[in-house]
Amino acid sequence: MDAMSLIIVMAVIGVIGAIAFLLLVNRKELGTKAMQEVWIAIRQGSNAYLSRQFKTIAIIAIILAIFISLMTLASPPTIEGQPDYTYGIKLAGAFLFGVGCSLFAAYISMDASTRANVRTTAAARYGSRAALTVATLGGAVLGLSVISMSLLGLSVLYIVFRDPGILAGFGFGASLAALFAQLGGGIYTKAADIGADLVGKVEVGIPEDDPRNPAVIADQVGDNVGDCAGRGADLFESVTAENIGGMIIGLIVYFLVYYTTGVRNELFIILPLLVRAIGVLATYVGVGTSLLKKTFSDPMTPLRIGFIATVVACAVLLYLVIVPSFNGGVYLYICALAGILASVAVVLITEFYTSSRSFYVRETAKSSVSGPAINILSGLAVGMESTALPIIAIVVALVVSFYVGKIWGTLNQINEFIGGIYGTTLATMGMLSVCGMVLTMDGLGPIVDNASGIAEMSGAEKELRERLDPLDALGNTTKALTKGYAMASAALAALLLFQAFVLEVVRYQAGVWDIINPSESVLNQLVNSLLSLFEPLALNKVDVIIGAFIGAMLPFLFSGTAIRAVSDAAYRMVEEVRRQFREIPGLREGKAKPDYSRCVDISTRYALKRMIVPGMVAIVSPILVGFLFGWIAVGALVVGATISGVPLAITMMWGGCVWDNAKKYIEAGNYGGKGSAAHAAAVVGDTVGDPLKDTAGPSLHILIKLLNTVSLVFIPLFLIALFLL
Amino acid sequence: MDAMSLIIVMAVIGVIGAIAFLLLVNRKELGTKAMQEVWIAIRQGSNAYLSRQFKTIAIIAIILAIFISLMTLASPPTIEGQPDYTYGIKLAGAFLFGVGCSLFAAYISMDASTRANVRTTAAARYGSRAALTVATLGGAVLGLSVISMSLLGLSVLYIVFRDPGILAGFGFGASLAALFAQLGGGIYTKAADIGADLVGKVEVGIPEDDPRNPAVIADQVGDNVGDCAGRGADLFESVTAENIGGMIIGLIVYFLVYYTTGVRNELFIILPLLVRAIGVLATYVGVGTSLLKKTFSDPMTPLRIGFIATVVACAVLLYLVIVPSFNGGVYLYICALAGILASVAVVLITEFYTSSRSFYVRETAKSSVSGPAINILSGLAVGMESTALPIIAIVVALVVSFYVGKIWGTLNQINEFIGGIYGTTLATMGMLSVCGMVLTMDGLGPIVDNASGIAEMSGAEKELRERLDPLDALGNTTKALTKGYAMASAALAALLLFQAFVLEVVRYQAGVWDIINPSESVLNQLVNSLLSLFEPLALNKVDVIIGAFIGAMLPFLFSGTAIRAVSDAAYRMVEEVRRQFREIPGLREGKAKPDYSRCVDISTRYALKRMIVPGMVAIVSPILVGFLFGWIAVGALVVGATISGVPLAITMMWGGCVWDNAKKYIEAGNYGGKGSAAHAAAVVGDTVGDPLKDTAGPSLHILIKLLNTVSLVFIPLFLIALFLL
Repeated sequence: MDAMSLIIVMAVIGVIGAIAFLLLVNRKELGTKAMQEVWIAIRQGSNAYLSRQFKTIAIIAIILAIFISLMTLASPPTIEGQPDYTYGIKLAGAFLFGVGCSLFAAYISMDASTRANVRTTAAARYGSRAALTVATLGGAVLGLSVISMSLLGLSVLYIVFRDPGILAGFGFGASLAALFAQLGGGIYTKAADIGADLVGKVEVGIPEDDPRNPAVIADQVGDNVGDCAGRGADLFESVTAENIGGMIIGLIVYFLVYYTTGVRNELFIILPLLVRAIGVLATYVGVGTSLLKKTFSDPMTPLRIGFIATVVACAVLLYLVIVPSFNGGVYLYICALAGILASVAVVLITEFYTSSRSFYVRETAKSSVSGPAINILSGLAVGMESTALPIIAIVVALVVSFYVGKIWGTLNQINEFIGGIYGTTLATMGMLSVCGMVLTMDGLGPIVDNASGIAEMSGAEKELRERLDPLDALGNTTKALTKGYAMASAALAALLLFQAFVLEVVRYQAGVWDIINPSESVLNQLVNSLLSLFEPLALNKVDVIIGAFIGAMLPFLFSGTAIRAVSDAAYRMVEEVRRQFREIPGLREGKAKPDYSRCVDISTRYALKRMIVPGMVAIVSPILVGFLFGWIAVGALVVGATISGVPLAITMMWGGCVWDNAKKYIEAGNYGGKGSAAHAAAVVGDTVGDPLKDTAGPSLHILIKLLNTVSLVFIPLFLIALFLL
Repeated sequence: MDAMSLIIVMAVIGVIGAIAFLLLVNRKELGTKAMQEVWIAIRQGSNAYLSRQFKTIAIIAIILAIFISLMTLASPPTIEGQPDYTYGIKLAGAFLFGVGCSLFAAYISMDASTRANVRTTAAARYGSRAALTVATLGGAVLGLSVISMSLLGLSVLYIVFRDPGILAGFGFGASLAALFAQLGGGIYTKAADIGADLVGKVEVGIPEDDPRNPAVIADQVGDNVGDCAGRGADLFESVTAENIGGMIIGLIVYFLVYYTTGVRNELFIILPLLVRAIGVLATYVGVGTSLLKKTFSDPMTPLRIGFIATVVACAVLLYLVIVPSFNGGVYLYICALAGILASVAVVLITEFYTSSRSFYVRETAKSSVSGPAINILSGLAVGMESTALPIIAIVVALVVSFYVGKIWGTLNQINEFIGGIYGTTLATMGMLSVCGMVLTMDGLGPIVDNASGIAEMSGAEKELRERLDPLDALGNTTKALTKGYAMASAALAALLLFQAFVLEVVRYQAGVWDIINPSESVLNQLVNSLLSLFEPLALNKVDVIIGAFIGAMLPFLFSGTAIRAVSDAAYRMVEEVRRQFREIPGLREGKAKPDYSRCVDISTRYALKRMIVPGMVAIVSPILVGFLFGWIAVGALVVGATISGVPLAITMMWGGCVWDNAKKYIEAGNYGGKGSAAHAAAVVGDTVGDPLKDTAGPSLHILIKLLNTVSLVFIPLFLIALFLL
């Protein structure tokens, strides 16, 4: 248990670091009274929304927990012939624990974000560096709290149950919380954003974040509840899913090595946790390095340095941990490295397509001259074309790590396919090892966005606002990069969970529940089952095809309902903002104050009400398909959803970023600049892109992982399916 | 050979019917001199474009034919131990024959379309019935020529070679011609359409099809080369693909039945051809019935009656042919019926989402009040949400027919999986049996569209134009319905071809080349190989996952390049139309004539140049993946492309129809009617939808079938793959 203690220590260090950074942020100045006024409205709005959202999620979670606990009655796992009816209760407990940890991480990050925002504005009076420091510290709270809360929760559960299967409950809990947090937050933020932009910027002609805009507070609140809490929950789920999948596959490797050599090396199981612990350390390295850089012209520079430091730290630390611990450890290390490199590649590709210097962004800006339709077509085309490179990067990482893992498996005399899969597991761990720093950069986004909004609304001096402008742009860049990274890691994590799902079914059927002292007969059965691992899931089987077909359709259905939610809410918001400008005398001239709370209320109501349908689509579909057609169809469903969900998510997210940056490129004075017809066209493109890149797109990451965790948790139900084709 | 003679006779009757209908159309009046002037410009433009397009396709086809003929050198099939190097030559010959037949069918249909258009305008002077009759006869040329040319080509090839494997070459040829016809035609028509609409309708404010619009002739030409020749080639490929897939699967059933009972029933192989022959007959029934209805208020009524008559005729004729011909034939008949019903279901679902009475269309129209962005989001949401029902309809047809087919297989003591697959084959045949009438309705679309344009441009009397308006709307409806049907049949045909591909690999490896007298040893080998049919394609294998992942990405990449082509061409077109309005004095007032030929030239150049990249993506990707990772990865690739391509195509096509009809709903006087802000917003949505619904969306049908035919043709190359995972 030496490694396990180290893991717990690192998890605690991570949580302490998050709290310490939060306290550090809290000691900074709050700024002028005008800033504080705006800030209090944002903070109260955010807290009010989050607490209502948490209540809704809690109710759904409790209903699902009851369902989960009953579910083992369907087909209880048997330990040495005795059915274990407590399994469902344990799963349900782990599920609720997962919901709780995820929401706690989301809460603490949003708390940090809504404390850091005004302090970043205030710090900007002392220069860009001071402002960036506050924002980075605030972002680091998100980065550290997410990875260390996930690590702590999983470690505790593993110590208690010593069974990675139970952890699937925790994963489902994390998925559920993430899904609703991202959906609710995404609907909230985009309804407010679109309402504010369409009426304020386009119809009335006032600048962004102008205090005369009735939707402006809702817009700022949305940044926090959508971008910060939402993305935090998303990556909480990614790291949790990767850990669980890695541990389940590690368990099979552990059994196989035990079977051939008689040695029980639990490190195979807990390696994912250990790699996450390394990630905590690497996050400190990255954040620390980025703060060291004292002067810069481009604020991206210190963050880039921090990210590079994180990558190098992970590469070095993983080498030191993996190579000496395993027979042929260098092969496993190569796999992990492939994952790290893939994450770097995806970040670079994202920048290639979506950064403001990108050829594609300029082409889209140029096309705006012919009106909104051509602008939209151009951005959509970029989004679709840009699916190829990141998927090729993921495929290369998979191929290399599988191939090297097979060599490792042969070396260790275990089933070479399982060796290969363990290789891909290492690649996924490698990719997610740098997660803490990526999240820090992401968490910084809403903080600087808010900071610049607060400066604008509080009427701060021009110099200060101009100092915050590049930081605001930086936030957009880091948000785009995080989304690329989140997508790639979600794809790998989902494929890992799918492999884990198949192996869990095998383990379930073989009845290997005691991982400390598995009896020889069950081990034999397990090894034999692995030999016919390929039979059931053949792509030419009809249950597989229909499962995959339905799965591939789900991301579309899900995105459609999410986009409709935003479009309906935005429609209402536009009406309300128009109404206030029409009915409140003097509002346009700045002589009267708008009624912010009405807009906050619209966003809140629509977000809470309209997140339910897409959420239910995601949860009910796999359960229904599995109950009808069995676990094979469910396995195919999750793969179908993953392979169609990833390109759809890329299309929506990167298309959205391209529209956004094309608009900014025009606003920088090109093709007529602000107020030109090209600008109006680009604003339409940006608005269309908003829910695609910030609501539906990122929710798809969660969807593909959620489908996997649902399928893991409901295995017993799927084993009593109605029709077997 | 009794059945075979019947098939040939029916194919010839089909071709004769097409020519007869063409002559019938040709005998109708040409109308006024003004009408003829416009008409000659359209006809010349269409012919000029088509001949240039055919030349380009011919060059590509010849290069590919050389490649195909060399390819058997990689891994020649062996007949009784002797390698058969002529296989590649035969395949290449069949390929060129396929290209030729497809282009001939496209040519004759477009010829009919460009003869029927002006005659429909002229006939409208005698009333709606007369106009609809001419248009229906013109459409029937498309319907009959497509299905009977495919039938004739395949039958001749089968009689010559007696090997369904060679027919794959014909299928690839049909796919290739279809891909470029649809892409080129799609780019052509939408560049012209967008250019005409954006400048003419929105900026200058002249009506649709106004002769002052410089892009108006290009727009009319586009209807013919895009909608008529393109869709014709698309469904030529569908029926060809279904026949080939069905014959390859039928061949395996033939072998299995021979193996168990010693009886060689070639009807198993040629049943798909026989069902197509029935389809020719049913088309006559449908067209005839629709012409019988003398009076109507809604012009859709006679067509609906014709479609119902076709469905009933197919159901009855299939019963008479299938039930007595096979042991347990009623089971096979149920499968075919499931396919027919699924096609009816898909048509109804398409109408539910996209017709002008649809709830969704009205919601989208309503959302236009908040501007173009909300309109686009609303239509996009409908497109995505509408993916669920048609895919469920397809899945139900697959499940039912597979299940019933399994029972049939057990009854006949053959491998029950093959029995099930044969069941799904019958379902696909059933769905495509009604194809002739659907194509007739589709072919009618561009004719009435042109007819109404000719009336407008020739300044015909108001009464005549008003009589043509409902026919124009009818054309939009039938086009939408055909797209839904084309998508569903493409999905089923693609999945069928995939099964055929797997079975062809097995047959290739077992070396069963002589279908008349297969030796007992190879038959034994075949039967044994079928027992381990599921091993290689397991979804948890990494080569399968990466193949499927790349495959699922391809529809996005392909659509992106296609949309970019349209967006670039439209950008140029907008510039050109704006230039003419700016530089030609008196054009706006109707005192000067625009330079139509410049616009025709832009459409032509862009279409021919920009169809190459997406086309190459489609052809090169499977070949490259197969050469790198083997036939398994290719198999997974085509399934991945199918399951992600279908929902993407539905999203684009139905989203596009919803935007289109929402615009029409506003133009009918709702939400402010023509000229209102809501109308301007709806025009933007319609323009965005144009290339989605008429270029990228329908091209995806072809893509998923093309990937399959490519994979069938290049099996020998894939068997010497570089890396096996």
